[in-house]
Amino acid sequence: MTDEIDLTDRDVFAVWTTDTIRYGDLDPNLHVNNGAINQFFEDGRVNFRQQRLSSTDGDKLTGFAVVKFSVSYRAPAHYPGTVEIGTVVTRVGGSSYGLGQAVFLDGACVATAEVVTVHFDPETSKSKPLPDGIRVALETAMIGLPGG
Amino acid sequence: MTDEIDLTDRDVFAVWTTDTIRYGDLDPNLHVNNGAINQFFEDGRVNFRQQRLSSTDGDKLTGFAVVKFSVSYRAPAHYPGTVEIGTVVTRVGGSSYGLGQAVFLDGACVATAEVVTVHFDPETSKSKPLPDGIRVALETAMIGLPGG
Amino acid sequence: MTDEIDLTDRDVFAVWTTDTIRYGDLDPNLHVNNGAINQFFEDGRVNFRQQRLSSTDGDKLTGFAVVKFSVSYRAPAHYPGTVEIGTVVTRVGGSSYGLGQAVFLDGACVATAEVVTVHFDPETSKSKPLPDGIRVALETAMIGLPGG
Amino acid sequence: MTDEIDLTDRDVFAVWTTDTIRYGDLDPNLHVNNGAINQFFEDGRVNFRQQRLSSTDGDKLTGFAVVKFSVSYRAPAHYPGTVEIGTVVTRVGGSSYGLGQAVFLDGACVATAEVVTVHFDPETSKSKPLPDGIRVALETAMIGLPGG
Repeated sequence: MTDEIDLTDRDVFAVWTTDTIRYGDLDPNLHVNNGAINQFFEDGRVNFRQQRLSSTDGDKLTGFAVVKFSVSYRAPAHYPGTVEIGTVVTRVGGSSYGLGQAVFLDGACVATAEVVTVHFDPETSKSKPLPDGIRVALETAMIGLPGG
Repeated sequence: MTDEIDLTDRDVFAVWTTDTIRYGDLDPNLHVNNGAINQFFEDGRVNFRQQRLSSTDGDKLTGFAVVKFSVSYRAPAHYPGTVEIGTVVTRVGGSSYGLGQAVFLDGACVATAEVVTVHFDPETSKSKPLPDGIRVALETAMIGLPGG
Repeated sequence: MTDEIDLTDRDVFAVWTTDTIRYGDLDPNLHVNNGAINQFFEDGRVNFRQQRLSSTDGDKLTGFAVVKFSVSYRAPAHYPGTVEIGTVVTRVGGSSYGLGQAVFLDGACVATAEVVTVHFDPETSKSKPLPDGIRVALETAMIGLPGG
Repeated sequence: MTDEIDLTDRDVFAVWTTDTIRYGDLDPNLHVNNGAINQFFEDGRVNFRQQRLSSTDGDKLTGFAVVKFSVSYRAPAHYPGTVEIGTVVTRVGGSSYGLGQAVFLDGACVATAEVVTVHFDPETSKSKPLPDGIRVALETAMIGLPGG
């Protein structure tokens, strides 16, 4: 499914977040380091959760874990600046869901990422089905997709 | 001199900077960790340099080093949010200068800091007198001080 | 090629690196955050470069960039502790190469990653063929692979 | 009291901790950035707490907060390397205590710090007297001081 989505296209995203680049994000080449870019993606996901999932089932941080994070670094980013992070649901499965994300700076796509999040039982660490409220909220957040 | 300045008072500052709190800044108590707060102070100083010193003498990052950083953590900060960092010159010496800084979140003062920066010769690592252009620019940035 | 390698198996790796977990790495759940784990992978790659590539062609940091980083987070890690990072070459292409990596803590595999690094011309930003010396060094670092 | 202690002297410290420098700690000048050095001090304090205070009164992290952190950056640190952090109690007051710390790399003192930690009631946020068990443990950790 993600293969069909161009994550460098701003029009596909459902939720937007902004972050400030810090001087401490710079690596020895004066580029924003990959660790900072990964933090931008994380902030996009946390904001997505607060915007779209938090009204459905209490604290959504419990029982959900990122199990797979695949990022493509596409262009260097510089300090100072403010990045925009787009996030969209790309897949809703039985006990997991997929997100597509991208970081933009001054109109250019700096990086894209695909993320798999699994719902699990904190006591047994085993995956368990997505609650219905979460499932509906996730499906609604596919709205940014072409034809969605 | 710094003893006479109330760094929790927004009116004393000459330059303002903003930063976004990141989820990754949180410590196990759900407070923004001290390392992130120290990064906010750093961004305030870099922005101060770019706003007030960069037109006077080329790249001001070379030959200046923070040698002393004293911070008082005054209140916890939470995610999400945008902090404001105020920076003011508190002292201009022969080969060093002092800055006063504070981080504010939602109107409350989260932390204050006093910083000593020394001008030095990168080849010998010995301190050397502040250039005249820098000295004038620094003295101008004391303007936020009461009676300044 | 990577599909055939079990990156959770310590025997496949060619170069090992160690890192200390920091209190500042902890997220609100008292787990080591993903950003820190990504830094461990980065240290594994830098050490790999210094151990295996640095004698072949001067400074190997110039003209090489990570363009793809795919990580699977497999188990939580706790503070304090010392992680071991294994790194192995999984593929040598015309102008790029692939690495497989894993982070271990107390014998357990915390995370695995696959990384694509591209050789490029810093002036044009276009990819260019791997130098022969680098190619040979990379192929030698596949030695940890079964049948390698 | 701290004025009388030379924190660049390894002999004054009661507890030692080690940390690994990470590539991600480097700033654009290829020096370890101040944020990383501050994390080393934090790890020294957490380890001090675990070594010296944890057997006296359960979880010592609750109800204690760093309110003042004053650091002197004395020499640049480089990657790769392993730092040693020394920590000693310099003062035991009614509801607070002082620590002296230093970070060493390859025998050289990179930075020193003085830290004030306050005991407080998490519900009211007001300071309260140090428990007797903690007081005794803190006084014992002044043993590294000359004449201690």
